[in-house]
Amino acid sequence: MIYDSAVIGTGPAGLSAALNLKIHDKNFLWFGSKSLSEKIRKAEQILNYPGFYAASGEDLQKAFLDQAEKMGLEINESMINEIVPFGDHFALMAGADFFEAKTVILATGVSVKATLKNEAEYLGRGVSYCATCDGSLYRGKKIAVLCNNARFEHEMRYLADLAAEVLYFPQYAGIGELPENVTVLKERILGIDGGMKVNALDLFSGRIEIDGIFILRDSISLKSLLKGLETKDNHILVNRRMETNIPGVYAAGDCTGRPYQYTKAAGEGNVAAHSALEYLDSVPDNG
Amino acid sequence: MIYDSAVIGTGPAGLSAALNLKIHDKNFLWFGSKSLSEKIRKAEQILNYPGFYAASGEDLQKAFLDQAEKMGLEINESMINEIVPFGDHFALMAGADFFEAKTVILATGVSVKATLKNEAEYLGRGVSYCATCDGSLYRGKKIAVLCNNARFEHEMRYLADLAAEVLYFPQYAGIGELPENVTVLKERILGIDGGMKVNALDLFSGRIEIDGIFILRDSISLKSLLKGLETKDNHILVNRRMETNIPGVYAAGDCTGRPYQYTKAAGEGNVAAHSALEYLDSVPDNG
Repeated sequence: MIYDSAVIGTGPAGLSAALNLKIHDKNFLWFGSKSLSEKIRKAEQILNYPGFYAASGEDLQKAFLDQAEKMGLEINESMINEIVPFGDHFALMAGADFFEAKTVILATGVSVKATLKNEAEYLGRGVSYCATCDGSLYRGKKIAVLCNNARFEHEMRYLADLAAEVLYFPQYAGIGELPENVTVLKERILGIDGGMKVNALDLFSGRIEIDGIFILRDSISLKSLLKGLETKDNHILVNRRMETNIPGVYAAGDCTGRPYQYTKAAGEGNVAAHSALEYLDSVPDNG
Repeated sequence: MIYDSAVIGTGPAGLSAALNLKIHDKNFLWFGSKSLSEKIRKAEQILNYPGFYAASGEDLQKAFLDQAEKMGLEINESMINEIVPFGDHFALMAGADFFEAKTVILATGVSVKATLKNEAEYLGRGVSYCATCDGSLYRGKKIAVLCNNARFEHEMRYLADLAAEVLYFPQYAGIGELPENVTVLKERILGIDGGMKVNALDLFSGRIEIDGIFILRDSISLKSLLKGLETKDNHILVNRRMETNIPGVYAAGDCTGRPYQYTKAAGEGNVAAHSALEYLDSVPDNG
C-alpha cells in the first residue's frame, strides 16, 4: 500500500501535522516514539505555549498524548534510516522493513551533529545506524553500541545475539537486565579510529579495539536520511509553505531552524500538513 | 515613552508574540480586544490545536485569557488606524492619541469584510471560514461554499467528501472537474438566513435551504494601515523570520496568508517576537 503521507517525528511539529492529516481522512503513517517527546517531558516549565499557563513538560506531554489517543492517531516506532525517492512516491527504509508514501513530512527535531569524531567518515565502514541492516556483518565479532533512548535497547539485544562481545554505552536511565556478553561502559567516547575500516574507539581511559560500532540515536544525519535534501548549518531549507527542495517532501519544527520553540514547531507542522494536502490534491490518484 | 514593541492583534498570533516579549521583560503595548478574539470564541469545535482535544472556541478562549491574565499581560483597546515610520521608531495613531514603539508586530488577522448579509451574525452558527476546522460538523449535510480564489478549491473538494450536497459559488475562472455531489451556481448570494443557526440562503432566484455555508476568501487591504508595506493578494509579505519589507516591522498569523489556522498563527507570533527581540538587541538603546 502506498500511503498518502508519512510523518517522521512525534514532537509538537509531528503531532500538529498528524492531527491535520487525520482530520482530512488521509491514510498516513506516523513514525516516532509512543511517549512522543522526551525533550518536552523533561521541560521544567513552559510559559509561552499559548493556552497553557506555566505548564510543566509533563502536563503538556500528557495533553498531547491524550489528544493523540482520542483522535485515534497511531505511532509506529520503526526507526526510518533512509528515504529513497521512487518515481511518484517515496520508499522509507526501516531496517529490513520498508514503507511507501506519496508525501513525507520531516519533523525530526534538531538533527544531532555526528558528535563522535570520525563518525561520518566511517559511516558504512564500521559505523552503522541500523542493527537490522548491518548486524549480520558482525557475527562473532566485538562491537560497540551507543544508544541514547530506551526504545532502541531491543536493537542492542538483537546485536548481542549475533556478536561475540558487545561494549554498551547507554545514554539513558533504566537499563534492563543484559545478556552475558554485554558490558556496560559509562565512559564518554572521544572518537572512532581505524584504517580503511573501524578498528578502535578512543575513550578517556584509553584505546579499545573493536570491529565496528552501532549508533542508535533518535535523529540521524539529515544527509544520510534523504540524499539531495538541501540543508544549511544542519537545518533543512524550507520556504514559507514548509516545502523542501524535493517536491512532496516537507519539513517542520526544530529541524528547520531556530527559534527552537514548541509553538513554532506546532505552527510549522500545521502548515506542512496543509501543503502536503494541497500537493496530494494536485497529483493524479494512482495509489 | 518609546516602547520596545507594539503588538497589534489579540488572536493567537498576537498572544503568542506578547507572551514571548513579556518573558523577555520588554516594555511593550498590546492592542486589541480584551476578549481576545471573537473568531476563536465562536468556533464550534477545534480538533487540531495541539494540546486541546475537541475544545470549543470558548474553552480555548478561556485558556488564552487565563494565561494572559496570569502572565500580567495588559490589553489596550485603542484602535490603531495608521502606523507612521518616524526615524528609528514608529508612531502608532489611534484617532487623537498616538503611541511610539521601536518595533511593530502586526497580528491583525484577516479582516474579512462581511460582504454577505448576516455573515458576521451567523459566524460559528452555520457560517465558517475554515474547512479543516469545521468540515466534520457537516458530514452528510447540505452546504454552500463560496470561494473567491482557485487556490482554495481543494478545500471545497474536502468539504464535498464530507457533505451530502455542496452548492458551489465560485468567484474565479477555471473551475476543475467537480465531484458528483457539487452543483455550481453562478448566482449572487443576497444574504444568509436562519433562526438560531443558518438554514437558508437568499438568492436572486429565490430562497434555498442549507445547513451551513463555508466562505473561502482572501483578506482585505492592509495598505492604509502602513504605507509602503509590501502585500500580495491582501496578505503581508514576510520571510521565514516573519520580517516584512520594513525593518522593525514583523507580521504573524492570518494576515500573512493561509492556512488560516490558530496553530500556524501562534507559531508565527512566536517567531515574530524572537525576530523583534534580535532586532532590539542589535540597535543602540536610545529609548
